Amino acid sequence: MHVHVNAAASADGKLSTRRREQVRISGEADFARMERIRAESDAVLVGVGTVLADDPSLLRHDEARRAELGKAGRPARVVADSRARTPADAAILDGPAATYLLVSEAAPADRVRALEDAGATVIGAGGERVALPAALSALADAGVEYLMVEGGGELIFSLFAEGLVDELTLYVGSLILGGRDAPTLADGEGFVGEFPRPSLVGVERMDDGVVLSYEV
Amino acid sequence: MHVHVNAAASADGKLSTRRREQVRISGEADFARMERIRAESDAVLVGVGTVLADDPSLLRHDEARRAELGKAGRPARVVADSRARTPADAAILDGPAATYLLVSEAAPADRVRALEDAGATVIGAGGERVALPAALSALADAGVEYLMVEGGGELIFSLFAEGLVDELTLYVGSLILGGRDAPTLADGEGFVGEFPRPSLVGVERMDDGVVLSYEV
Repeated sequence: MHVHVNAAASADGKLSTRRREQVRISGEADFARMERIRAESDAVLVGVGTVLADDPSLLRHDEARRAELGKAGRPARVVADSRARTPADAAILDGPAATYLLVSEAAPADRVRALEDAGATVIGAGGERVALPAALSALADAGVEYLMVEGGGELIFSLFAEGLVDELTLYVGSLILGGRDAPTLADGEGFVGEFPRPSLVGVERMDDGVVLSYEV
Repeated sequence: MHVHVNAAASADGKLSTRRREQVRISGEADFARMERIRAESDAVLVGVGTVLADDPSLLRHDEARRAELGKAGRPARVVADSRARTPADAAILDGPAATYLLVSEAAPADRVRALEDAGATVIGAGGERVALPAALSALADAGVEYLMVEGGGELIFSLFAEGLVDELTLYVGSLILGGRDAPTLADGEGFVGEFPRPSLVGVERMDDGVVLSYEV
């Protein structure tokens, strides 16, 4: 499976404000780029924090690009959601695309059942927290060869920590969000001693910022 | 006065690890660029957090560049240090360059005296925290026309919040430091509603990363 993290951050590395309010960081060209990557993906993964903060549907994608690639159906949506906290009325469970929830044994059975009733396919892996290597393996078995990851920073950190990221594209917007508690591209515990060192393979000015492309 | 913030951050916007350990984020070419900016500056400003974490001397600069510009002496060192917490044996108080401390009324008189005895020139402005506009004004009166700022994230946020930044150059290193508590380029409380929106005026690949230049 190819795992492609795509995100937009401010010049100071933030994905949103300290209040977790979404801010328009990029512009039309970057949105089109993001929708093209979605079209090329079999599934789009977000963390449950992003679902709770933004309630995204993740449905929009570049339909012409998808048709050109001959890919059937729409990209599936996937939520990394150890404790099954996704609300049953979340937009990500709605609409004409499949939804997978990656949960752990810590997910209450009634929450899991409610989300299955709401249409989700639940994949269980791990004890307290979802075991991402096993969960992504199960997604691969379900036919996901190209997985796009849109955030947030806790999920992205975990994927880097597990060595699961193959590609990173980062739009750096020309604004300062600030905030020692604002979410960043990679949160989590943080690395010490050894750090992932992706290779910078592309630099492209776009809208009023720049897209940095890395291979990991 | 021209205020130029120059910093190196990881791709996820961090200045150092969650343990505040310095990590080599850039390489030789970026070090040379940083030492050239120091040579062009009348003074180099850091926050006391940086002094306590790294004990920098801030003495190294591009001497050939300074001679070429005909600038006399060495760039002064300045610490934004509301409570005068700089240790009397800090490297920033040592060596053949002047040192200014920007303190507030909250600085204990005995600490201020000890730091004056250690050779610092103390500038007082503000009550609980140093009032940066007044303090920078006093630096301007002392002949500082070009002020370079090297961090940390608390100071840089405060300077943006006060509208005091004229120029930002940011080296984005090709590594992931991670950590929800790691220092970022702009920490502080964080902005909401209105955000500084510097203009991206330059993108240059350097070492294994990229330098982004902004005018504010």
